[in-house]
Amino acid sequence: MSDQILAAARASFAHHGYAGTTMRSVSTSAGVDPALVTYYFRDKPGLLAAVLEPPPSMIAAITAAAASPQRDRGRTLVRALLEQWESPVSGEILRSIILTAAHEPVAMDRLRQVFAVSILAAVSAQLEDEAERGLRTGLVASQMIGLVMARYIWRVGALAAMSADEVVRYLGPTVQRYLFGALPT
Amino acid sequence: MSDQILAAARASFAHHGYAGTTMRSVSTSAGVDPALVTYYFRDKPGLLAAVLEPPPSMIAAITAAAASPQRDRGRTLVRALLEQWESPVSGEILRSIILTAAHEPVAMDRLRQVFAVSILAAVSAQLEDEAERGLRTGLVASQMIGLVMARYIWRVGALAAMSADEVVRYLGPTVQRYLFGALPT
Repeated sequence: MSDQILAAARASFAHHGYAGTTMRSVSTSAGVDPALVTYYFRDKPGLLAAVLEPPPSMIAAITAAAASPQRDRGRTLVRALLEQWESPVSGEILRSIILTAAHEPVAMDRLRQVFAVSILAAVSAQLEDEAERGLRTGLVASQMIGLVMARYIWRVGALAAMSADEVVRYLGPTVQRYLFGALPT
Repeated sequence: MSDQILAAARASFAHHGYAGTTMRSVSTSAGVDPALVTYYFRDKPGLLAAVLEPPPSMIAAITAAAASPQRDRGRTLVRALLEQWESPVSGEILRSIILTAAHEPVAMDRLRQVFAVSILAAVSAQLEDEAERGLRTGLVASQMIGLVMARYIWRVGALAAMSADEVVRYLGPTVQRYLFGALPT
């Protein structure tokens, strides 16, 4: 029951924004009594917080990739990201988070936090220097965010059409360089 | 006068979406008579089309970068993109286009088209093979879109904080490889 409500809330926040979503409109499109929405999620901020929770499989997958052997970690990270986006369940959740974040600062903060933490884990293990860790995290983020936006949101021709294996082959080396390569001076 | 209307329309489409914007609400926030909005832009689709026009300086800058010497074209492209985003006038226009595109498919189509065409120009000159041109365009797009999103929209720590010169230094080589480097097989 709460899954039904969450799915309706996701669609509403993504397409109508925070201001355009009400507890009542969510209960109507979920086909449940409004009292149930309040029972499960208390109020609209509670509902938004639940909608912004990243899929548990995503956290697990990125954590596993972050602990994978260094020599292949760039490719492993890209593959983990693709698998999450291409699973129907977590893909739908991630898409609605991205779309909600586009016009809702609270969602953007949450997204930035989750994303930064998972990438930070992938780069932090081997780095003592905090500034270098921040820099490499930012570089990796720029390519991972660009991959997600270009392939799944903007659907840029070639990138949307290629197989996951091809994406890993072309973009994995870039992420690997950002993680471990020599930095240009 | 039409500039004032456009600025109000940009803010409204970006924050309230297409459905949440009316000719009347735009005239009110621009402080002009509603008849003037109709006079200049005819109707809401006309107003949206005007809002989605990329800044003329952007087209000129990317076209110039696309014709720059090959050995430095990756860096030149990244620098041109940064200069457009960091100019107050074109930066504001680009930001509103990106935010509008997040919830308006027409805006997304237009954005994709403009972006694809400018990057295509940067890679097309030296390539006979159409499939390779599409592939390289997609790879460049993934890094350029990621740079814009991470630095200006998501404001990911390190990437938002670094100077334009540093961004060019770190991301230029990636774009250069995507444009001209050997492709992994």
